[in-house]
Amino acid sequence: AKNNNHAAFRKLFLRLHVKDQGDLFQALYPQNQKKVEQFLEPDEFAELFEWMDPLEQKNVYEVFSDTYIATLFPYMEVDNVVKFLGYLTHEEQNKILSLLEADDREEITKMLLFKSESSGSVMNKGYVTGLEKTTVRQALEDIRESAKDVEMIYYIYVLDEEGILKGVASLRDLMVKPPSQTLEDIMITQVAFVNVDIDQEIAARLLQKYNLIAIPVLDAVKKMVGLITVDDVMDILEEETTEDFNEFAGISRKKSKDVEDGVWGVARMRMPWIIILIFMGMISASLIGSFETTLNEVVLLAAFIPIITDAAGNVGTQSLAVAVRKISMGETSSSRSIGRILLQEFFVGAVLGLAAGSVLGLIVAIFYGNTILAIAIGISLLITLSISNVVGAVIPVLINKLNIDPAVASGPFITTINDLIGLFIYFSIATQIIHLL
Amino acid sequence: AKNNNHAAFRKLFLRLHVKDQGDLFQALYPQNQKKVEQFLEPDEFAELFEWMDPLEQKNVYEVFSDTYIATLFPYMEVDNVVKFLGYLTHEEQNKILSLLEADDREEITKMLLFKSESSGSVMNKGYVTGLEKTTVRQALEDIRESAKDVEMIYYIYVLDEEGILKGVASLRDLMVKPPSQTLEDIMITQVAFVNVDIDQEIAARLLQKYNLIAIPVLDAVKKMVGLITVDDVMDILEEETTEDFNEFAGISRKKSKDVEDGVWGVARMRMPWIIILIFMGMISASLIGSFETTLNEVVLLAAFIPIITDAAGNVGTQSLAVAVRKISMGETSSSRSIGRILLQEFFVGAVLGLAAGSVLGLIVAIFYGNTILAIAIGISLLITLSISNVVGAVIPVLINKLNIDPAVASGPFITTINDLIGLFIYFSIATQIIHLL
Repeated sequence: AKNNNHAAFRKLFLRLHVKDQGDLFQALYPQNQKKVEQFLEPDEFAELFEWMDPLEQKNVYEVFSDTYIATLFPYMEVDNVVKFLGYLTHEEQNKILSLLEADDREEITKMLLFKSESSGSVMNKGYVTGLEKTTVRQALEDIRESAKDVEMIYYIYVLDEEGILKGVASLRDLMVKPPSQTLEDIMITQVAFVNVDIDQEIAARLLQKYNLIAIPVLDAVKKMVGLITVDDVMDILEEETTEDFNEFAGISRKKSKDVEDGVWGVARMRMPWIIILIFMGMISASLIGSFETTLNEVVLLAAFIPIITDAAGNVGTQSLAVAVRKISMGETSSSRSIGRILLQEFFVGAVLGLAAGSVLGLIVAIFYGNTILAIAIGISLLITLSISNVVGAVIPVLINKLNIDPAVASGPFITTINDLIGLFIYFSIATQIIHLL
Repeated sequence: AKNNNHAAFRKLFLRLHVKDQGDLFQALYPQNQKKVEQFLEPDEFAELFEWMDPLEQKNVYEVFSDTYIATLFPYMEVDNVVKFLGYLTHEEQNKILSLLEADDREEITKMLLFKSESSGSVMNKGYVTGLEKTTVRQALEDIRESAKDVEMIYYIYVLDEEGILKGVASLRDLMVKPPSQTLEDIMITQVAFVNVDIDQEIAARLLQKYNLIAIPVLDAVKKMVGLITVDDVMDILEEETTEDFNEFAGISRKKSKDVEDGVWGVARMRMPWIIILIFMGMISASLIGSFETTLNEVVLLAAFIPIITDAAGNVGTQSLAVAVRKISMGETSSSRSIGRILLQEFFVGAVLGLAAGSVLGLIVAIFYGNTILAIAIGISLLITLSISNVVGAVIPVLINKLNIDPAVASGPFITTINDLIGLFIYFSIATQIIHLL
């Protein structure tokens, strides 16, 4: 019966697409997941393992034996092995690495030394190379022979004897050119590439910009040491977008080590900004406190504090969102001066402020029957939104130009700055007209 | 001299990568841009035109003659033509379409009928097909012949006589299989595909999920009518991410028609939420107004309104950001019940609330020397953050499950809800302990 199970499982399981195999595997109970170790050969499970996300891989790591995990590595792309090992502690890494053969271990150890999120840490080795004198006929034959094992066969990279990148030819070109020509005759020599130390996001943007399906990674002397492919790039862009989103919401940058997900893990990532903002909020509190005399005379003024701060915050967040997207999509604003941006954003804010101020003024005039208060609030909103829109749009651009850590431009920070501006304007105007109220 | 200019420009310009040609073109003055119409042949400019973003294309449309624009179309991918036409008014579209030959016009008109952002509206026609009985040798020959004009030559799609999709074989497979085998022998029959009416984002996610470089588009009877390629998918994901970002910041969904960018265009997209929030803010104002007696006794309470609302807003925004990313990346939470999510988020909020509440309580106790007020504010923050974290995380998930327009879950909306919750808790607690202050 056990052998039957074995065969039945294999028959059913191996017919599925690897992504669906993954979903099925995750749905199993741990004791049944453990059995998969006996049911599937390392080369069969390796493919599935490569497709899993970090949390799922960590789960497999908990259930499976280290020995089985180590046997998977030779069947995996080296960038995926390195990525997986990145989620483990140094002791766990060493334990598994010690089970590998010497040259596998050496290659992996070398890649683990690249900085996390550098191009070197995400590149893989599955590509085809040729020499300048290689004929088109020979190149096509080389590609045919590599096609079974190599990830990227749609480009052939032309290297000299030292391994330095001289050019690239696409499989498409090889197919249409006369077989007797050499790679030197047909190759493109102006090749987009990245250095091993360059941030992975730059590699991704470059590939996207030139509509490539792979981009070569070179070392300091322009030797080709790896390749980043379009499917890696989509994962990288996904990751970077999530980082943008988190930064925008004031969540700390997730280190690749942190796969943990529980209450404490999540709270720890989100804590820093919340606490910083409490301190910044104390400035608002002092500001309001300094207008205590005004407030004492017209307590109703307090009722509009949230409207003023929320409107300022929202307008700032909107212009911040647009600015963050522009920056992260690499839309430089070189053609437009900071001055022009500033003026445009000021006018946008003024239009929004005029609309919002008129509406709020009207409501207050009708509901509270207090025209003076209505005008004061309306004008406060007009001025506040004009300024806070500029703050939201310009601060991230400035920070980016000055090469300061853009985390400072995260949403909650901008919101708090705009709160202060709004409160100051509101209470200053209110204090001026208090004798009329 | 004029001819010299002509030749010199062509020599310099045509040597550049098309993306760099675009940057150079944009840097020219309009009167010089106009000259490019005479300097470059339609097939040369068409490639460059395809790479431009909507605003740049619109700029070319303003400068160039309609006749020249129309001559570009036969050299462009049909999806790019359709996309460009989508930015024009109906009259402008018709004017250009009338300059085309009948069958080009018909094909484009058919595609213009697809809903904006549907798979049908972004697909292109550049792919290779074969029949089940086609041999591998013949298929390779077909690909070789198509390689010059066809965008995607790395897959061959196997259709029956009616054009219904039966399978797919990769160029990689063709290269390693015996030339005498037929496509039927080697093709994969379980092909990932999308229907013409399906949202482009679903096509993009499917391609990403299965690591494909193209995904076929089928009509209602499974006839293959087009293809979406990986470079289109990267643009689609970029577009969808920008939409998520905007939604998150309360900016209205940008219609593909709106390429305009000026002060009015921007303000109009951002206006709706700002005005809605003014009305919602009036609820906060009334709530605070209803605690006027409490406020009158201790005006200092007003000073902490921004801290309470900002903290509630930020915590809600953080959990919203995480939820929005999970939903848009297609991470369904089927395996985890709403109940479990709710509990986890509550505890995360409680941890954050405990930390923030303790810090704020301590500061207030020290700076204002008022222990009772300190305790009241600390407890308010604890309760508020526990609840607002749940609100930020659960509302978008619920809305997604109920298939309501997720725009309702945008950042400013969640922030305002959380403001109300925070203010209510804060003033309720303050009112209870007012006699102790």
